[in-house]
Amino acid sequence: MRTIDWVDGAVEIIDQTVLPKEVRVLRLHTVPELVAAIQSLAVRGAPALGVAGAFGVALAARVHADDPQALTAAVARVETARPTAVNLARGVRRAAALLPRGPEAVLAEACAIRDEEVAASRAMASRGADLIVELCGNRSRLLTHCNTGGLAAVTLGTALGVVFELHQRGLLGGVIASETRPLLQGARLTSWELSQRGIAHRVAVDSAGPFLMARGEVDAVILGADRICANGDVINKIGTYAHALGAHRAGIPFVVVAPESTVDTHTPSGDRVPIEDRGAAEITPWSDAVNPAFDVTPHDLVTAIVTDRRVIRP
Amino acid sequence: MRTIDWVDGAVEIIDQTVLPKEVRVLRLHTVPELVAAIQSLAVRGAPALGVAGAFGVALAARVHADDPQALTAAVARVETARPTAVNLARGVRRAAALLPRGPEAVLAEACAIRDEEVAASRAMASRGADLIVELCGNRSRLLTHCNTGGLAAVTLGTALGVVFELHQRGLLGGVIASETRPLLQGARLTSWELSQRGIAHRVAVDSAGPFLMARGEVDAVILGADRICANGDVINKIGTYAHALGAHRAGIPFVVVAPESTVDTHTPSGDRVPIEDRGAAEITPWSDAVNPAFDVTPHDLVTAIVTDRRVIRP
Repeated sequence: MRTIDWVDGAVEIIDQTVLPKEVRVLRLHTVPELVAAIQSLAVRGAPALGVAGAFGVALAARVHADDPQALTAAVARVETARPTAVNLARGVRRAAALLPRGPEAVLAEACAIRDEEVAASRAMASRGADLIVELCGNRSRLLTHCNTGGLAAVTLGTALGVVFELHQRGLLGGVIASETRPLLQGARLTSWELSQRGIAHRVAVDSAGPFLMARGEVDAVILGADRICANGDVINKIGTYAHALGAHRAGIPFVVVAPESTVDTHTPSGDRVPIEDRGAAEITPWSDAVNPAFDVTPHDLVTAIVTDRRVIRP
Repeated sequence: MRTIDWVDGAVEIIDQTVLPKEVRVLRLHTVPELVAAIQSLAVRGAPALGVAGAFGVALAARVHADDPQALTAAVARVETARPTAVNLARGVRRAAALLPRGPEAVLAEACAIRDEEVAASRAMASRGADLIVELCGNRSRLLTHCNTGGLAAVTLGTALGVVFELHQRGLLGGVIASETRPLLQGARLTSWELSQRGIAHRVAVDSAGPFLMARGEVDAVILGADRICANGDVINKIGTYAHALGAHRAGIPFVVVAPESTVDTHTPSGDRVPIEDRGAAEITPWSDAVNPAFDVTPHDLVTAIVTDRRVIRP
């Protein structure tokens, strides 16, 4: 089952806001529907957002074929639906480059992006599993943050794809999934994906991660990225940096898994990336809040970045 | 209003499980009622637990005056209701030492412990505020974790008492309260106490703390302790260690505020302290979990410990 796909003239996604209680498929026929799905996190995860962006341009190209001005506006709406993950804007721009050749060419490019993400997941799973065995030996106990499984990509995923691959090879010693406040992508989505594959795991509150590492319960941290800067700084779900500090102090590897489509050589360092603040309502009904959805992990805390093509050691 | 007190032959507490929706006072007449309140966190916080332990012995002394065996068992139940904060067992033992002199002597000792905690809060607020001004100058922006206000003590509190004092002196530049998963003592209790005093503040998810420090939004971290070991290791609510790592990397002070009754010179270091695991149900209905309620912050990450009598710089 694919997290996102083009089916009979519309974008179909698994609605990630209602998992694990319900597996609901949404059909999105228009750009406003797609943008709403992106902004509510019904579809999320850097690789999936790249595909969503490209499919968004395909939707726009069909609806606004005779109105270039409306078409440009619709494409811009998709491109700016969320600011932090580089994949969304990149997927949009890549598909939009085909607009002069008409809607079918745009759709073909979007489907190519989808297929590339599927292939990238397979490559990352294999290369990442090799690296974890190299760094930690067999039976490694991994801690992961947020959701980086099939739900964050098209199938399989990034960091969680590595976990699945290690499980398949019989080399997985355990998994701790941090719950990932405020929207619980770990407790809801990662836990659900692990259960679907019969992989035993434990959920922990986000702030417990560094302590569990200090107590010797974790051999490596493995997680994804929303953007990787030219200097190796990693932008990822809020809490990633705290886990990197914990891994550094505990002396265990901190491994980032993300496709090449997440590597952004045009952004020199993490302090240049716009960090989305998602407002107080996501956190608390009782007061004001500061709610950055992502943080910056400086490259010196990153042991390795695994992409579909290489292993980068910043 | 006192968080815990002895009123007309029973222990009265503010029920912290229903705040901020409701301010409900519970009257506890028996040891089982008191133990249930401690274990459900209806009463919590190291100083408040010390007083609760002593009042628990006073309840036991009245109910079991004619049955020494039942009395011993009841005292043991209170003493072991929760394992991590040293204050609970210490309050129990101090009140129990008066048992040979009868129930009234026990109650007098428990009330003395209560009064000492009230005085200790005042002393910590003043000394802690002086220290923050010394370390950070005027208008400091503080991040605090869990709840260390009047609700964690009898009145005023420990670290949050320092925040209140700085506000009164006109020297507070801002407060971020981390929400404190899983039971949200920050988002529910600290936020409520700050609002009651008209102090503007923002709540953040726990894992955002280190990033907000890296981004330059925090001048110092200030929080409490459930036990301070002989070597200066600090046992406190889960998430404290991650915040200490963040403060260390950001080069800002990490200040612990706790009464002398929390200093445990009989425990040499943090690895000797039993860390309560509160089970999966508190975190997630969907999977297994690991749920340590506390963590250990090594003394080298602690800038200063402020007690009612001194400032310790580990």
